[in-house]
Amino acid sequence: MKMGTIYGVGLGPGDPDLMSVKADRLLRNARHVAYFRKSGHTGQARKIVNGMIPGDAVEFPMEYPVTTEIPVTDPRYNELLAEFYEDCTRRLKDLSDRGEDVVVLCEGDPFFYGSFMHLYSRLRESAPVEVVPAITGMSGAWTATGDPITWGDDVLTVLVGTLPEEVLVARMAQTDALVVMKIGRNIDKVKRALRASGLFDRAWLVEYAQMPDQTVTRLSDAGDKITPYFSIIIVHGQGRRP
Amino acid sequence: MKMGTIYGVGLGPGDPDLMSVKADRLLRNARHVAYFRKSGHTGQARKIVNGMIPGDAVEFPMEYPVTTEIPVTDPRYNELLAEFYEDCTRRLKDLSDRGEDVVVLCEGDPFFYGSFMHLYSRLRESAPVEVVPAITGMSGAWTATGDPITWGDDVLTVLVGTLPEEVLVARMAQTDALVVMKIGRNIDKVKRALRASGLFDRAWLVEYAQMPDQTVTRLSDAGDKITPYFSIIIVHGQGRRP
Repeated sequence: MKMGTIYGVGLGPGDPDLMSVKADRLLRNARHVAYFRKSGHTGQARKIVNGMIPGDAVEFPMEYPVTTEIPVTDPRYNELLAEFYEDCTRRLKDLSDRGEDVVVLCEGDPFFYGSFMHLYSRLRESAPVEVVPAITGMSGAWTATGDPITWGDDVLTVLVGTLPEEVLVARMAQTDALVVMKIGRNIDKVKRALRASGLFDRAWLVEYAQMPDQTVTRLSDAGDKITPYFSIIIVHGQGRRP
Repeated sequence: MKMGTIYGVGLGPGDPDLMSVKADRLLRNARHVAYFRKSGHTGQARKIVNGMIPGDAVEFPMEYPVTTEIPVTDPRYNELLAEFYEDCTRRLKDLSDRGEDVVVLCEGDPFFYGSFMHLYSRLRESAPVEVVPAITGMSGAWTATGDPITWGDDVLTVLVGTLPEEVLVARMAQTDALVVMKIGRNIDKVKRALRASGLFDRAWLVEYAQMPDQTVTRLSDAGDKITPYFSIIIVHGQGRRP
């Protein structure tokens, strides 16, 4: 029997109208749909495709055993996640062995800080896997600001808020354009780093880019509000322009 | 009369199946289609939408007065391009004033090193302009390599091959993951910088990502072949993974 294909389908920043034609087609014809979510939650990826996947599609929610309860530096964090990814891999492989195609929902672009990569690296040798790229969350965010991110020879640096403060400062101080992902509870550290590197006054905070709740705020006007994990900070490049 | 909207529509890396649902819809219903091209050439953007735009759409090829004939450091380069962008802006504004919507074709993502930005910045105060983000060429390229670009806390740096060699080396030496855009005639300089920064053996060359002629080659196996301007070099991050 022909093995089924496991599609890691990038959903883009969140607006179904910004999904690729290919993602749209795969979703509307899906028989098996898998997605990550936090236990007890619907899951952001699943919410995005509401009304798009067939009513009789079989859903496979893959529930993280841990999200922020254990610090990522704790060895147990990696152990628990590794076990979880192995288990998900077995179940997806089993569907593929039975000839079933599976669509795995991926927020943003699957190969850019995505969770699907952890399944992909385990599946790629033993099952047909195909990755469908998508508009990154950061493209969604810089488009939302209404200003280009890079001009001419601008250097763009992408950082994650989970990095140590001194690393953030050093990298921020040397770039022309900047994107900071994974903000959430790291917001105070990221703000201090932006101040220390002289970028704070040019920084924008984009929450829920390209979704109905989208907000775009100068970081200096954002006050102390708590921002969701998937908010993105943008500093635009100022490079050469005729 | 209601003014027409000028849409800067990102076409993504080149595969029509990877365009957004919104871009696809705008293209198939377009009445006016504008695009940049080198004089005497069809133009890459126009080629990508072949067969997608209506046969009776009015086309407006915007032909660069100069591409690589004058170095970008020559003041005449900026003058000629500024005049050119002003002229294109006037013609687009004129269509908008007459109530006509215009689709401007943009390779990749319009706000990421795109040419549309130069029209956008001139039009935004005087006409309705909307930017449709797209899959970047670099997403297309890293997906083509079959390996994720960033894991965990990886820092991603995006450089353009037009930068001075010492800047390239300094930035390459400090990043986890790397993308180099605008290679073309800068390939030898970029290769030397990759060697000096210790990244050469991990570098991949992707040409025509997500297009029929796509090639993915280890840079160390690429020899001395000339690569097109829109080829992309990728060095994958090696960050934390459970």
